[in-house]
Formats: sequence, C-alpha cells, structure tokens
Amino acid sequence: MIRDLTDDEARAALPLKWELPDVVPAWVAEMDYAQAEPITEALVDAVRRGALGYPPHGDDLGAAFSGFAARHWGWDVPAGASVATGGVVSGIRLALEVLCPPGPVVVPMPCYPPFVHAVEVTGREVVPIELDPESDDAGLDLAAVSRAFAAGARTLLLCNPHNPLGHVPSRGELAGLAALAREYDARVITDEIHAPLTLPGATFTPYLSLDDRAVLVTSPSKAFNMPATHGAQLVVLDPADRARLEAAPIPAQNTWSSLGVVAGTVAWRDCDDWLAALVERLAEQRALLAELLADRLPKARMRPLEATYLAWLDLRAYGVDDPAAAALAHGVRLAPGQDYQPGLTGHVRLNLATSADRLERIVEGLRTALDDGGSGAPRG
Amino acid sequence: MIRDLTDDEARAALPLKWELPDVVPAWVAEMDYAQAEPITEALVDAVRRGALGYPPHGDDLGAAFSGFAARHWGWDVPAGASVATGGVVSGIRLALEVLCPPGPVVVPMPCYPPFVHAVEVTGREVVPIELDPESDDAGLDLAAVSRAFAAGARTLLLCNPHNPLGHVPSRGELAGLAALAREYDARVITDEIHAPLTLPGATFTPYLSLDDRAVLVTSPSKAFNMPATHGAQLVVLDPADRARLEAAPIPAQNTWSSLGVVAGTVAWRDCDDWLAALVERLAEQRALLAELLADRLPKARMRPLEATYLAWLDLRAYGVDDPAAAALAHGVRLAPGQDYQPGLTGHVRLNLATSADRLERIVEGLRTALDDGGSGAPRG
Repeated sequence: MIRDLTDDEARAALPLKWELPDVVPAWVAEMDYAQAEPITEALVDAVRRGALGYPPHGDDLGAAFSGFAARHWGWDVPAGASVATGGVVSGIRLALEVLCPPGPVVVPMPCYPPFVHAVEVTGREVVPIELDPESDDAGLDLAAVSRAFAAGARTLLLCNPHNPLGHVPSRGELAGLAALAREYDARVITDEIHAPLTLPGATFTPYLSLDDRAVLVTSPSKAFNMPATHGAQLVVLDPADRARLEAAPIPAQNTWSSLGVVAGTVAWRDCDDWLAALVERLAEQRALLAELLADRLPKARMRPLEATYLAWLDLRAYGVDDPAAAALAHGVRLAPGQDYQPGLTGHVRLNLATSADRLERIVEGLRTALDDGGSGAPRG
Repeated sequence: MIRDLTDDEARAALPLKWELPDVVPAWVAEMDYAQAEPITEALVDAVRRGALGYPPHGDDLGAAFSGFAARHWGWDVPAGASVATGGVVSGIRLALEVLCPPGPVVVPMPCYPPFVHAVEVTGREVVPIELDPESDDAGLDLAAVSRAFAAGARTLLLCNPHNPLGHVPSRGELAGLAALAREYDARVITDEIHAPLTLPGATFTPYLSLDDRAVLVTSPSKAFNMPATHGAQLVVLDPADRARLEAAPIPAQNTWSSLGVVAGTVAWRDCDDWLAALVERLAEQRALLAELLADRLPKARMRPLEATYLAWLDLRAYGVDDPAAAALAHGVRLAPGQDYQPGLTGHVRLNLATSADRLERIVEGLRTALDDGGSGAPRG
C-alpha cells in the first residue's frame, strides 16, 4: 500500500529534498513515498472543478480532526475548537503574537530551528533548556522548566512527539509540565504535527487533554507528506482565545489554502488505512536502520525512535565534529545536529522514510565518511 | 475561450464568494470563470506525480515573470530579481519588516483593508491620504505625499493599478512619486497584482521601472484566479535588499507553496492567449455595466474602470448610507465602500467578473435596494 518512489520519481516530486545531483538525501522531513490515493483524487477533483479560490469561512477540517483524534487517541476534542492557519511554524508565531504575553519563551533543545526563529521574530527572548547528550533520558527537564518559569518565562514551546529526538513524552511527563504551567499561569504551545507518526511501542498523549489553556498546533501535512497544500490548525479550547485568533488580521494570520482544506479534510477523515500501512513501513525502516547501524556503525548511538521518521544519531565516538558535512562529501545528505542545538558536535538527524535500498546507501555513505575521519577524501 | 461557470459550478468552485445561499455575489475579488487550461493541466500533473513537498531553492518563477514583463510591458527585469513569498499581503508585511525603517507609512485611501492591517501588525503608524469623493481625479495627491514625507514618513504603499478605484496611474504620476521618494529617501512598496488586468484604453507602467529602490509585490493569483496556489513574488533590484529578504527566517517569510511555483510559472509563461481573452471579456463586462447603470441607476457615478474587474461606485445620490447592506437584503452581495475608507458613506465596490446574466441581476438587485431607500423591505 506504501509505494516507494524511484530515484527519478522522487527527484521530480520532491525537488528540495533531491536538489543535489548524485546525492542520496536524508535531510529535510519529506518521505520518498507516493501520497495516499484519496488525497490525490480529492486534489485533482478540486483543480478540475476550479476550486482554486479563497478558503471558505467554516470548513470541515475541525470536524475531520476531531474524528481522527477520537479514533486514534481516544480523545474528544470539539470540532469547533480548530482555527485554520497556513502552517505550523507560522501558527506558532500567530499563537505567540495573539495569545502569549511578551517576555521570555522556554524552548527545549535540540529543536527544529524555526522554533527559535518564531520566538525571535516576535521580539521575545529564547530561554533554551539543553539536553545533555550523555543523558539516556530524552524527556523534558522539568526542574529546568520550573526554574525558567520562576525566573519569569510564561510561555513554552513543546514538540510532542519530539523532532529531532523521536521521543514520545509519557502522560506522566506531560502531566508534570501541565502542573508547572498551572502553577505559574504559563501557556504551552504544543506542536503535534508528528503525532500520527507515533510508532509501535509508544503511546501518544495530546497535551491539550491535560492542560486546557495550551495551544495545539498541528497539520496533516507531515504524516501525509503534503506541505504544499498549506493547511494547518490551531486548536484552542477557550472560545475567547479562539475569537482572538479568528480576529487576527489577514497579514498576521498566514492564510491557509483551500487546497489545504480539501486535502486536510480527506487526510484526517479517509486515510486511516494508508496511515496504518505507513506506520508499519516506518517501523520496518526503523528496524532496518538499527540493523545497518549495528553492522556498519556500531559506535553510533541512536535515540529510541518512538515516533517520526527522523532518527537522532550521536556519532561522537567517531571523532568527526560535523558528520553531515563529511557524509555529503560521500554523496549522502543528512541534517547537521548543530542546526538543532548550536555548538553541538558529532550529531546528525537521519530521515529514514525512503526505500530500503536507499537507506542502506545512506548508512554506507555515512560509514565511509566517518571511517575516512571526515576528511572528504576517499581512503587510500 | 473564457468559460463562465454556472451558478452550481461557481458555488462548488468558489465557496467563500458564494457562501450565502440565494445571493448573487459581487464582493470578494474572484472571477466566476474557469481558469486557464495550462494551469489546470500543470496542477493535475503535479498532484499526480506527488509534487506536494516543499518548494525548491531556485525556481522558474522569476524567469517566467521577466518574460511576461517584457512581452506585456516592454520592461526588462532580471530573472534573478524575484524572491518568492506566500502572498501579496504577507509579502507587504515582509517588505515592511525587512526593508523599511520603523516609522509612519503613507497609505492612500480608499485601500484594500489588509494594507492598513499590514502596517499595523508591524507596529507602524498609518498616515492615510484620503481621496475626496467629489474629485474627478483618482490620482495620488502628490502634495499630500510630500507633506507626509516632510513630516517623517519614509514608506508608502502604492496600489498600481489601484484597487478599489480601478485607476491606472500614468507614467507622469508615478514619476512624480518616484521623484519625491528620491528626495526624501523614502521606500515605495508597490502592489501590482492587478497589472495583467489593465483594460483597453489604459497603459500600465511598472513603478519599479521608475524607482529602482522600490519593492514590487506581485502574484499571478489575481489575474489567473488562483489564490489557493499560494505563490507570490517580491521583486527588488538591489542584490543586498534581496539578500536581506532571502535571509528572513521561515516564520517571517510566509512560505510559498510548490504548487504556487508550478501554477505561477505556467501562468506567467504559457497563458497569454487566455489572458487576452479574459481582458477582452472584462472590457465587455465593463461596457455592459456602464449600460446597465445608465439604464437603471442613472445617478450612480462610476470611476473610470481602467484596470481590474472591480468597479468603484458612488451611489450617494440615492441617499442610502450603506448600499451594500441594502443590496444584501435584496439578494446581492457587494463590498461596502466604508471597508476601504472608514467613514465613507454611499459607496460600493462591485465585482463584474461574472456572467452577463448575473451582472444584470446584480445591478437590478442594487437598483431595487436603492429605490427602496435601503429599508430592506419590498416596496408597497
């Protein structure tokens, strides 16, 4: 049910990911798989009937998301709680501008770099909480969060499940954060775009189910591989908060596309079978990656990949500061760890959502690069 | 070559414009015509090959726009001068944030309301220059612009051609503005999204051809009726300015869609025949509207419609403060004039890009409403 794109097909479909010739890409978060058929058909139908205008007031996205949340997570969220927006990152900016007080924002690190930029463009200070790369626990450091709140921060950006760590926070971990948020009257903005990609063995908990003042930002664009459709949702339970978001003027709200409404509604509502097949396939890729690493890069330390298709690898044992740069010289493009936590050396994020064959080429290229000591020259 | 959508087709294609049942819509700027065939085919092809990912670095939009500018306006603009963005309004915000100094921004009125909001969300003051509704000249009041610059404003938002007035500024008028901009070292941001819709009898002049520090914001989305595709362009001639725009972080840049790149490239490059047919058709609609007004609303004063499909009507002679509200009670939805210039009474913007039959129903509904004195009750 999951169809792998050939190299040529992937290059034509995903021109950013595949922009470099003769390089196997494993960097940006796109999957080398064909999208779900109901999404294709809904978009083709929309284009053919000329539905290229402005999105309607009132759409089916909220209801479709509620249905998805109930079926997948046993969570009842009102259909009316969703406010459409253009994308998750711009949605975070909008939530900061409209719902959050000025002042410092806690950002657990490593993080997806636009998290930091979203805080900065609103004129707020970033309070990073860095993960000790030696720690086995990828969970949030609640003591550090408490200190940051005590020092004056009133906002925290959560990534649940976590990109790039692949961590799915436990209900207990999230409840601890919710208790701190209540204690300090702080607002948590939670990016849950990877939630549908929770892999076998882990259980996803919607943070908003534990903290009703939180702002959930999500989109089907990641799990269903369609960022071009430009549709995302802010989900807030307080009608007054929702009214404030809905009153944001057009230049602030990052308008969404009617194609995003069409594709998003179908994704949340009609693609469970495809998603189940995808999650199964990603679990196979995860197992294959573990085998390949054990065989060829035994000193690599991979964080348990509980969700997403983005593996976080600690390669410091190989003594190469920038393994992504080294791998690129050997025809493999990974995301450099230092992009996610400035100053961090020896880490990469590896996108395993590709064919088995390409995943093997990716690991082999990385192995060659690291064996080579990162010099970029073939071994003599 | 221009195919009218039936009522049912238009309702399915344009759910915002047609959101009210039993109402003929002439408010929001969308056309009740099928889009150009090359755009349909390019989008269907993109969807079927799975091109729903992130837009590429480096695309053909700039080159396609350069070709369009050369063919249509005899203007040479470098292909590399374009920087992609998500939409014109967010592009204006981005230009303000990245390229313009803090401080007041001159906004000629009436204006498209998001112009004012774009200034406000950047924390800047709006300096309105209002058009005297009695004036026959819809041109920019250069004396008022000079006073505003002398008082400290260093930015002006131009709309060329003008929405909602339908005015195409002459080369002389624009040269006068450019001279003032040079004198005061002011930056003009010029929204030229309606330029391809310049109608027979008028000549469009790209403002950037007269003022090389200006920021041109445009998109094929208006002329080609496809706002859902989310692609627009900032065109700036100074490489340093361009570098600043390109360095804007993702949360500020209002990311564009790869579907916008696909559709926009085809629109600028391959749709001249369709556009010529459209302009001819809009000129016919303009003539029909003039006839209908002369026949049924002889006291209406319509600004010469030199470009766009949006007619600006002064209906004050009928003594109804809010003609749009009155018309709505008679099944016709117009855009209220006061949305474009707060406090202005007796004006509407009328979208004539529909079928001849519907245009007649629109004028007839407005006539009935005005004859009725705006009470909303049928005449006894």
